[in-house]
Amino acid sequence: MAATGFPYNKDKLLYFVDLAGTFLFAIEGATAAVYGGLDLLGMLVLAFATALGGGTIRDVLIGDVPTASLRNWRYPATAFAGGLIVFGAHHVFQTLPPMILLVLDAAALSLFAVAGTEKTLDFGLHPLIAVMMGTLTAIGGGTIAALLLAQVPRVLNADFYGSAAIAGSVVLILCRKAGMPRGWAAFAGGVACFALRCCALAFHWNLPHVD
Amino acid sequence: MAATGFPYNKDKLLYFVDLAGTFLFAIEGATAAVYGGLDLLGMLVLAFATALGGGTIRDVLIGDVPTASLRNWRYPATAFAGGLIVFGAHHVFQTLPPMILLVLDAAALSLFAVAGTEKTLDFGLHPLIAVMMGTLTAIGGGTIAALLLAQVPRVLNADFYGSAAIAGSVVLILCRKAGMPRGWAAFAGGVACFALRCCALAFHWNLPHVD
Amino acid sequence: MAATGFPYNKDKLLYFVDLAGTFLFAIEGATAAVYGGLDLLGMLVLAFATALGGGTIRDVLIGDVPTASLRNWRYPATAFAGGLIVFGAHHVFQTLPPMILLVLDAAALSLFAVAGTEKTLDFGLHPLIAVMMGTLTAIGGGTIAALLLAQVPRVLNADFYGSAAIAGSVVLILCRKAGMPRGWAAFAGGVACFALRCCALAFHWNLPHVD
Repeated sequence: MAATGFPYNKDKLLYFVDLAGTFLFAIEGATAAVYGGLDLLGMLVLAFATALGGGTIRDVLIGDVPTASLRNWRYPATAFAGGLIVFGAHHVFQTLPPMILLVLDAAALSLFAVAGTEKTLDFGLHPLIAVMMGTLTAIGGGTIAALLLAQVPRVLNADFYGSAAIAGSVVLILCRKAGMPRGWAAFAGGVACFALRCCALAFHWNLPHVD
Repeated sequence: MAATGFPYNKDKLLYFVDLAGTFLFAIEGATAAVYGGLDLLGMLVLAFATALGGGTIRDVLIGDVPTASLRNWRYPATAFAGGLIVFGAHHVFQTLPPMILLVLDAAALSLFAVAGTEKTLDFGLHPLIAVMMGTLTAIGGGTIAALLLAQVPRVLNADFYGSAAIAGSVVLILCRKAGMPRGWAAFAGGVACFALRCCALAFHWNLPHVD
Repeated sequence: MAATGFPYNKDKLLYFVDLAGTFLFAIEGATAAVYGGLDLLGMLVLAFATALGGGTIRDVLIGDVPTASLRNWRYPATAFAGGLIVFGAHHVFQTLPPMILLVLDAAALSLFAVAGTEKTLDFGLHPLIAVMMGTLTAIGGGTIAALLLAQVPRVLNADFYGSAAIAGSVVLILCRKAGMPRGWAAFAGGVACFALRCCALAFHWNLPHVD
């Protein structure tokens, strides 16, 4: 998740969107915990790890500690709320059409990739590092969740998911280099990530393997 | 483990207790390494990870680096001593009644939960974060050890272990809010964690799962 | 990998050797990704993790953030180049005599152990911590790669690999204590690690297990 400290720049809409993405990723993490046979504590841990793990590791690596996910208690509270809702109403999520969740997930992926890239650039690091940190923000949480379930993270061996985050991050940086204002560059990066991820879902894209 | 920097406040008893908890968790980690088929180096790594991993991650997240576990060499030395003792006398631990080790473990769990909560409050972070960091201090090391053995951490899917740490941490914070002096609040939190954990052992408590 | 910030002391040769070690470890990580069934993104992630993961965790623990691996983009770029080369020419590496790769790996292991030990001493930490961080620099990356493949890290249960790193680090520190100049102490430590690792390969050394 992003946990970018949006509240401090008073942009209420962005802050709300950030918490919404956190909430969605938390629901996905807690659902994975259910399928992995974890108990209530395990569900809360996976909700937090999935929603906020990527942004937390990013903050540790770039040196922004205490991490944003610990400075504002609303982020972990949102993640735990997502975990508790899955605990109380797991069957509700099973009745939703999967495509709705996948499209919402693509939106959260785009948001986190963009937020992670922007924060890293704000810290004065190289664009290559910003792409790495944007991607880490977007896919790091799901990777930690998989490790806690003793599984190989799916993002590393199938699908076209992290690649969409990379592409969105690259688009953001290229748009900034081309002189586009920050807000529009972020918007373009997010749209690129979202569109690519939706295409990947529609056309069952996968990255190549060495055979 | 805690590694809270106790030596610097000159409280010799607390420091000794802290090292004793580190030593016990190290013995548990090295024993898990034996059952996991690891060699001597693996035993030392798991002794360190189990005893000091939780406190180390806490320190990294809240920004206290170099971590307490690296600033005072007696902490890792204690952990490695625990690992070496298991290497040299693994059979001795097998002859102990399991209940003794479980009760000692409950004591170390309580100590680490309380120490982690106190340190996080001292860093000025929110009580919710202090509960999270207290729990991380108590159960983080065992979680890392499980990951290194490619196993799902047992604390996430069975038993009533992390929950006792959470409860102890919450009790500490409530007692402080009620105006109790620091020392007594910490004592109350530790006793709550220890009592709950012992009840869980006696009555085979488990957290609920989603079915 | 090391990522010790060598470029800043203008020692071109050491910098080149550092990047060469990064490149080699990246090739090993990407090759492990191929055998683990990962896709192109997984190969790049494992190339980075194997080559730079140990040094990155060391920097986080001792408090040198943003980590050296993120401050100088040439380190991750070198790691990704190694990953891409395996993607494009995996079959070439299969035709090489394994012993060549193993001896090169022993050289990189020695370099990383020495660099990690030196950096930790420069940060004013205790010699025991310097040995731990030197070893972490040398074997941490491969350990993370194994976790991402949901495997028990081989360094923890077989072979004589991390032990060679420990020995090299200890030799470096003893030589310094004996008054040897920095450069010669580092050289002695590196030679000790390399020689021990090559002996381990020649004579199939293993660390003892508890039976």
